[in-house]
Amino acid sequence: MKITTPTLLLDKEKCLRNIRRMVEKASENNVRLRPHFKTHQSVQVGEWFRDMGVKAITVSSVRMAAYFARYGWNDILVAFPANVLEIAHINQLASRIQLHLLAVNIETVDLLASLLQHPVNLWVKIDAGYRRTGILPNDHTTLDSILEKIKQSDKLHFQGFVVHDGHTYKQTDTEAIRTIHATSVYQLQLLRDRYKSQFPGLQLSIGDTPSCSIVEDLGGVNEIRPGNFVFYDLTQQRIGSCSFDEIAVCMACPVVAKHADRSELILYGGSVHFSKDSLPSETGSVIYGRMVELNGKGWTQPVEGLELVSLSQEHSIVKASPEQFAKYNIGDLMFVLPVHSCLTADLMRGYLTLEGERLEHLSGVGQLAVLL
Amino acid sequence: MKITTPTLLLDKEKCLRNIRRMVEKASENNVRLRPHFKTHQSVQVGEWFRDMGVKAITVSSVRMAAYFARYGWNDILVAFPANVLEIAHINQLASRIQLHLLAVNIETVDLLASLLQHPVNLWVKIDAGYRRTGILPNDHTTLDSILEKIKQSDKLHFQGFVVHDGHTYKQTDTEAIRTIHATSVYQLQLLRDRYKSQFPGLQLSIGDTPSCSIVEDLGGVNEIRPGNFVFYDLTQQRIGSCSFDEIAVCMACPVVAKHADRSELILYGGSVHFSKDSLPSETGSVIYGRMVELNGKGWTQPVEGLELVSLSQEHSIVKASPEQFAKYNIGDLMFVLPVHSCLTADLMRGYLTLEGERLEHLSGVGQLAVLL
Repeated sequence: MKITTPTLLLDKEKCLRNIRRMVEKASENNVRLRPHFKTHQSVQVGEWFRDMGVKAITVSSVRMAAYFARYGWNDILVAFPANVLEIAHINQLASRIQLHLLAVNIETVDLLASLLQHPVNLWVKIDAGYRRTGILPNDHTTLDSILEKIKQSDKLHFQGFVVHDGHTYKQTDTEAIRTIHATSVYQLQLLRDRYKSQFPGLQLSIGDTPSCSIVEDLGGVNEIRPGNFVFYDLTQQRIGSCSFDEIAVCMACPVVAKHADRSELILYGGSVHFSKDSLPSETGSVIYGRMVELNGKGWTQPVEGLELVSLSQEHSIVKASPEQFAKYNIGDLMFVLPVHSCLTADLMRGYLTLEGERLEHLSGVGQLAVLL
Repeated sequence: MKITTPTLLLDKEKCLRNIRRMVEKASENNVRLRPHFKTHQSVQVGEWFRDMGVKAITVSSVRMAAYFARYGWNDILVAFPANVLEIAHINQLASRIQLHLLAVNIETVDLLASLLQHPVNLWVKIDAGYRRTGILPNDHTTLDSILEKIKQSDKLHFQGFVVHDGHTYKQTDTEAIRTIHATSVYQLQLLRDRYKSQFPGLQLSIGDTPSCSIVEDLGGVNEIRPGNFVFYDLTQQRIGSCSFDEIAVCMACPVVAKHADRSELILYGGSVHFSKDSLPSETGSVIYGRMVELNGKGWTQPVEGLELVSLSQEHSIVKASPEQFAKYNIGDLMFVLPVHSCLTADLMRGYLTLEGERLEHLSGVGQLAVLL
């Protein structure tokens, strides 16, 4: 298949290996893997999970839940504070699948209790340190009143407590990630102890990609929900979650101009393809990707002497050593590992596997096609 | 129309006013307005330009050219170094419309000369100071050889020189923008003087949104190509290109959680909706948008006491004064002026006018639907 515009390549073998490793790790730890599908958002990649025995999934929007429900997924957690404005679609989904929602405020519980027409499984979100959203684990007053409210509703089945430790993304010290994870699990267990007499079946759910990749012992909870591990990316490599070899997606971008005077190449591929996420480089500036070369069976490690130093809407600038500069001509493709695979995949709206198969991404599916 | 998920609102009246002002300014300066359509990428917004007499447009990709060609635009400049890998689509377009391409390197000219099946208008891109891409205006050796090569081809009609002064986006001093613009025009005129005997009809094209908004005298060239002015945004307001009143797009985002302990609201609306572009705030941190309120005829100026301080993939965090915090409940909508309207529109894939009309954005159109 001839590539003529920026294209997101997917190495299926690497991706399957990433999935298999996490499936096995969950199984060894005796926890349910409820992978977050927001990274790939692809019906085909979803099937690879299903083939390895995964039955329950996590998504980040009602629309994403509707998309996967259409393809036979029937145990779906929308890991986002329930958006009561979408009650019509929530009710449609709740009538067809085991829908799990998440609440942070008593107002949301009240609204759901009065608006739901079908039962849903409700989780309460705990903020174990990330400070984005969730109830503080020591805020027993709020927790008591929320759980009381849930108990009164015949539509809400309390499932347990959910944590997302997004602050692991800010770490580059694996010991810090182990500490964050262990502390969150400990706090979840205290909550289970506190509420298990009222809710004997209550479950604990946790698990971002850095923790689930780095921490060996993932026990003490019922389920883990990593997502990014399906592809990984430069951010995860920098955190220590993966090696370069495990990054399963790579951008192919045409070379459209060369500037010998400053040893820079201009690529077709900008912020509408990569997203604006960046990483600090070794020289103190920022980089928007690392260049690799294709070889017979995929791509190489990042090559020295090439750096993606700047992004505008459709262009990017590659700073090259004289040796690398000479290797590329106008009309060639260059290959770039992305900084943040979730955002790049969302922008690229589809994948091309190394075998030439095109895979779907929800963002490439018509807006009205999903929610019926 | 009920809004239930993040939605990009478009104030048609403001947008028409922005278009009309630029049309009049171009006319007063006796220059052709060839607006850049990459900001809106919408067939309907394009019609508003056509209604005011605009006939020639600029786009940033072959796909975008194909999209607008389908709706009757037949004088289109792809203001991006010609991507020879897309020669099949370039040839299709060149057979149907007045297609303008842009070259930076002699290799591109060579490839186009040998691969084109239909005539195209070729512009040479000059780098007047931005240092992204283009030939330096004093590099006469390269210019001489490129123009000689163009002259030898029966498929390439040399049109003139193009400049994009993207470095105006880094300025907040209007005097600096005037200086940049005047210097670029001066350099273009020197080039015209140098080559006009060989190419008597050669034209000069320039014009980013900051220059075209701020500089009074836009003469001395043949055409201007601003794009962002159709909507403007917080970046342009900060540069000095527009007032808050002229920003014609605004995000509507549901409130999904509240955190009274830290006076923060959680919105449904994150980096997959806004993009990650940010601006420095007055306190030295960064902001991802400014909050407004809807009123009878659109929206207000930014309100005090609300700041969009953090974005993750689907969430954002609003820091609120106690007074503002109390005003919003779960299930309400909040309204946010975007930092960079081009990227937000690209991510949102469509618009909702204040009158309830849905407008298309190319990124919401199926991938295969455009290029036939």
